[in-house]
Amino acid sequence: MRMILLSGGSGKRLWPLSNESRPKQFLTILRHDERPESMLQRIWRQLSEANLAGEAYFSTSGTQAELIRGQIGADAVVIEEPTRRDTFPAISLAAAYLHDQAGASRDEIVGVMPVDGYAGDEFFEHLRRLPSILEQSGSDIALMGAVPTEPSDKYGYIVPSSSPSPNQPYLRVSSFVEKPDLIRSEALIREGALWNCGVFAFRLGFLLDMLEQKGLSSNYESLSTNYAELPKTSFDIAVVEQTRQLSVLPYRGEWRDLGTWDSLVRERSSELSGPGYISEASHDSHIINELEIPVSIWNVPDIIVVAGPDGVLVTDRQSSTGIKDMVTEIEIGPRFEERFWGKQTVLSHQQATSGLQTVTKRVVISAGRFISYHEHQFRKEVWTIVSGVGSVCIDGIMQTVNPGEVIVVESGTKHYIGAVEGDLEFIESQIGHIVSETDIIRYEFPDSI
Amino acid sequence: MRMILLSGGSGKRLWPLSNESRPKQFLTILRHDERPESMLQRIWRQLSEANLAGEAYFSTSGTQAELIRGQIGADAVVIEEPTRRDTFPAISLAAAYLHDQAGASRDEIVGVMPVDGYAGDEFFEHLRRLPSILEQSGSDIALMGAVPTEPSDKYGYIVPSSSPSPNQPYLRVSSFVEKPDLIRSEALIREGALWNCGVFAFRLGFLLDMLEQKGLSSNYESLSTNYAELPKTSFDIAVVEQTRQLSVLPYRGEWRDLGTWDSLVRERSSELSGPGYISEASHDSHIINELEIPVSIWNVPDIIVVAGPDGVLVTDRQSSTGIKDMVTEIEIGPRFEERFWGKQTVLSHQQATSGLQTVTKRVVISAGRFISYHEHQFRKEVWTIVSGVGSVCIDGIMQTVNPGEVIVVESGTKHYIGAVEGDLEFIESQIGHIVSETDIIRYEFPDSI
Repeated sequence: MRMILLSGGSGKRLWPLSNESRPKQFLTILRHDERPESMLQRIWRQLSEANLAGEAYFSTSGTQAELIRGQIGADAVVIEEPTRRDTFPAISLAAAYLHDQAGASRDEIVGVMPVDGYAGDEFFEHLRRLPSILEQSGSDIALMGAVPTEPSDKYGYIVPSSSPSPNQPYLRVSSFVEKPDLIRSEALIREGALWNCGVFAFRLGFLLDMLEQKGLSSNYESLSTNYAELPKTSFDIAVVEQTRQLSVLPYRGEWRDLGTWDSLVRERSSELSGPGYISEASHDSHIINELEIPVSIWNVPDIIVVAGPDGVLVTDRQSSTGIKDMVTEIEIGPRFEERFWGKQTVLSHQQATSGLQTVTKRVVISAGRFISYHEHQFRKEVWTIVSGVGSVCIDGIMQTVNPGEVIVVESGTKHYIGAVEGDLEFIESQIGHIVSETDIIRYEFPDSI
Repeated sequence: MRMILLSGGSGKRLWPLSNESRPKQFLTILRHDERPESMLQRIWRQLSEANLAGEAYFSTSGTQAELIRGQIGADAVVIEEPTRRDTFPAISLAAAYLHDQAGASRDEIVGVMPVDGYAGDEFFEHLRRLPSILEQSGSDIALMGAVPTEPSDKYGYIVPSSSPSPNQPYLRVSSFVEKPDLIRSEALIREGALWNCGVFAFRLGFLLDMLEQKGLSSNYESLSTNYAELPKTSFDIAVVEQTRQLSVLPYRGEWRDLGTWDSLVRERSSELSGPGYISEASHDSHIINELEIPVSIWNVPDIIVVAGPDGVLVTDRQSSTGIKDMVTEIEIGPRFEERFWGKQTVLSHQQATSGLQTVTKRVVISAGRFISYHEHQFRKEVWTIVSGVGSVCIDGIMQTVNPGEVIVVESGTKHYIGAVEGDLEFIESQIGHIVSETDIIRYEFPDSI
């Protein structure tokens, strides 16, 4: 089975740690073997252990491709959406890619899975059974359904039409219910409904045929070129709910959506991460602090405080809806960014009355990686090397830089910087009348070096 | 009447905005005529309006002298304690100074007032009456006593022995009660007790005589030289409570101690200061945010969130005791410092495994001020000018610096920087194996310039 791994999300629900340039699946807030791990890295590790990572393809858009390669490795295969749309166009494009570019036949089975979930290892063993369920049941699509552990209004439900029997591991699907209220969810659970994990499998030809039936192309090049015209709708609505022959494999084990701070702190062994203090009377309060400065809770129970370069959130443990709208109102643009080459944090952004702007950043280039050759027209950059050994090229002249050295890169100067020995950390002050991500001209690295 | 203004405090109760280098009286968190004002500036303005600032002397130690001159003006007269002790040695030293250095006669009346209180303007009109109260009553010390508006365990109480009468504005003092519990405070108020404002007046000769009676010197030079041997005790215990002839002038008006975040937010017209958001369900919650990044409260009522360069505090509105101990545990040294020449904020402090440290600061030198000529032996500094026009001297060579320019000051180099046109703002990266306040050698500015 080839896997299509969906990576999307706007990163607003887990503000201030997640942001546009770092949706929640990239946050390294889980732990494995004492080391921090993101949801993406966890799922990738679990897929690898279940022998499903070898033929896995990421479906995502723009900036996330760089992040995925940064966290998984440079050889991660990413099928990039030309623009961000929804899961129906994304999965269709990925399916066409598998057929046209990756040599998959129409008979091959394709599994689809989002990378921002959280499941136990046994979930992946179940996942491996979907191809045989498709075969046994004669269905067009086989889904995974988690057996609910409690009434919940956070999930969609799959309502089966049959009851489980010892000699048939799957159930026929009768209908779907999108996030019901708690009372309705209790009734659904009594009827045997399952949580929709968003994980399913189908034969590649099934989807390609469907695209043609809908009057769309099933050709990768053509889909990619006309991507902006594909319907902006979910795969659930456009395909799953239009399909008659559906079966679901019940899964009795750990599975949940880590989409709120409350669900995340439940996974953590300690109330406090990062510098800070929680007073005794602050029962069941948690701090996740990614700043250098201490954060403390004094006699306030049942709250979560999250602090990072983008801001500070103080929230009760129950509410989560609405945070997205608030974030839209107050966000100041991502101050922390994870990139393929490493990461950077804005420490200060000043605008003088003259219009001159200064952005001060802490930049870490990961060992062996580099920021490619480019120039800025409107800003100068000053680098003060903190640690590591770097290789710098300015207008074709190479030099090695060591801690304590200062490099001034004037505007209009081509430059490159890479980490030669260990991670390279430096303080960068950008200064100019326009300090923007768009002020960049990229160049091929000169051949002569 | 000459005034001795006491400025002390460790700055822990209003953490994270106050710190060792900025006790609460220096926080510019009040407002006057739409402009921010500190408690010190407010009291100074009120004293000036009551014609009491002309003969006012600050009594304080070390670093606070610079802060007082920064906030009040370079001509503020400061009597510096050689080391920080308590109010008895501080007031004694100041009294000796008035007699020996400032030409005050033993018959002159001296008023004493702490600069971290908060009172209405009419308080200062009352203060002007203390000399005549001393005369009328024949007392050794005349105190100000605020008529309590509610039972409180935060203040000391003055218990009068007489009842108010129309033709005698003052009362005789019978005893003092230090911070009683609430029940006891109710009883005291029924007996006519008044809050002790820590404000009083006496004839200079009274204190000088008392010093001699205690076997201490009343000579300024001698007190200053032997300061470390003076008893570390409060003026209340050493003098006021030992004095028989005491009277108190009741004051019916606005007076309180702004010593907790709750008392401070009550003075503010808005729930939110600085970037941030308070959700509707967060009734009676407040944010004071001095960071560049937004701080938000999501559905948590009755809390105060204070964020600044030193840290973030989330506290309920009632508790305040105990915060001092917590701060001692988590504080990371002042990241924000106000100095005579301006202010500086540490943005980041990194220590590489090699031991090399980098401190990145945002520095603002106030218009017309400068950082005096000095050198560092163990660190290099890199200045990126953000705004204003500066004058820089490096090893005797002067130059003018403008926004966008970068100055590298190698270790072992003498340097000076001043603000020539408007405030001078720059980003400073310090880098070295020892980055410490003690690595400084000061020089006279070269004559030839």
